[in-house]
Amino acid sequence: MGYQEFTIEGRNAVIEAFRSGKTIDKLYVLDGCQDGPMMTIKREAKKQNVMVKFVTKERLDQMSDTGKHQGVIAVAAAYEYAEVEDMLKAAKEKGEAPFLFLLDNIEDPHNLGAIIRTANLAGAHGVIIPKNRAAGLTATVARTSAGALNYTPVAKVTNLAKTIEDLKKEGLWFVCADMGGTTMYDLNLTGPIGLVIGNEGEGVGRLVKESCDMVASIPMKGNIDSLNASVAAGVLAYEIVRQRLKA
Amino acid sequence: MGYQEFTIEGRNAVIEAFRSGKTIDKLYVLDGCQDGPMMTIKREAKKQNVMVKFVTKERLDQMSDTGKHQGVIAVAAAYEYAEVEDMLKAAKEKGEAPFLFLLDNIEDPHNLGAIIRTANLAGAHGVIIPKNRAAGLTATVARTSAGALNYTPVAKVTNLAKTIEDLKKEGLWFVCADMGGTTMYDLNLTGPIGLVIGNEGEGVGRLVKESCDMVASIPMKGNIDSLNASVAAGVLAYEIVRQRLKA
Repeated sequence: MGYQEFTIEGRNAVIEAFRSGKTIDKLYVLDGCQDGPMMTIKREAKKQNVMVKFVTKERLDQMSDTGKHQGVIAVAAAYEYAEVEDMLKAAKEKGEAPFLFLLDNIEDPHNLGAIIRTANLAGAHGVIIPKNRAAGLTATVARTSAGALNYTPVAKVTNLAKTIEDLKKEGLWFVCADMGGTTMYDLNLTGPIGLVIGNEGEGVGRLVKESCDMVASIPMKGNIDSLNASVAAGVLAYEIVRQRLKA
Repeated sequence: MGYQEFTIEGRNAVIEAFRSGKTIDKLYVLDGCQDGPMMTIKREAKKQNVMVKFVTKERLDQMSDTGKHQGVIAVAAAYEYAEVEDMLKAAKEKGEAPFLFLLDNIEDPHNLGAIIRTANLAGAHGVIIPKNRAAGLTATVARTSAGALNYTPVAKVTNLAKTIEDLKKEGLWFVCADMGGTTMYDLNLTGPIGLVIGNEGEGVGRLVKESCDMVASIPMKGNIDSLNASVAAGVLAYEIVRQRLKA
């Protein structure tokens, strides 16, 4: 698979990248810049749900490879996203029940990287992320995945709830992590499964949660609300691993 | 408990802070600065194993509250470290078998924060960290702990291996996470326990590992080496929780 990040600098190059359908992960824009071409860029970014950061000229100068950023630098992923079907095919070829991770809006690239790392080691066949404001496959994600991004395929889908419905037809069961669910030890998590992990602050979205067959909760003894998202993903993934080893 | 970070600016103030024994977490020094007082500061920092970052004047100006940093800003924790004995006392008062986390040189403050968060929710009575180059209780740690730092005591000790020997006399058993150990599901992790988590890159140090009663390994199916340190801590902590719930 492989992954490389590259930057696109200058107004026309960035507008062109948007028009050609390139996956832009992040946009750095000179703070206060309001002219025509820049407004076009911001509009495109909004349309495609690209994260926009407003920065100083010094910051852009520092980031620039060409020295000719004209107030805008886009960060794009050369990483190739996979298809969900390929994940199912890989599971079949290995003679294993499919095991997928579905991330409902993980925003922190460190969390995304750590989760892809966990997915690899827990023996999952792929990670599915939504095509929106969630973190994409940036260089930080590649780095925090500790190389797992080269082995574990990541697919980007438009609608996570719809993907879940489609995968149910393929025989998968879905479990999401949320408070107020059944203690994970009391659920049957063997067989073809999709593990759904919610956003860092808001948890799993309502529609996605309603699509799930089971809601699993991690027993919590402490004073605070929730585990870090990548830790919660790890704890749940390894409960699945444990049950699969025992089965 | 509570936590607040504060900065100490200017040469004399920083030298004074070192001399008075304040816990300095990090030192920002103007790159290239080599005069007498600065050499004294660097020497003190080295003696006390404080992490030193060499930065530009712009960076220091930006960080400065007073505008008078004279090329040096120290970040100190107003957070009060706890004592190991208090953790044992807390366990006793709750009528629970002691459950402690011992971190052998976790360097990334995000990992440290996430681990303190996990310790809190897994019902551990405290977290023990070494007094050296490992991450201290900085503002980033406080933030990533999601408030857990206000509830879960953290102690700083000079020698982790010695602390383990002392705690063995109190009846604790120690398990460290490392490759080539016994699969965690096959170990008895109930009873008074200390969970030892190693450094992000190097794992658990030799001396600390030799002090442990058990080496636990997390089953790994993938292509890469290891889980993120805070994820590994979470997976192991929850295996302890599972076994305790069942016991």
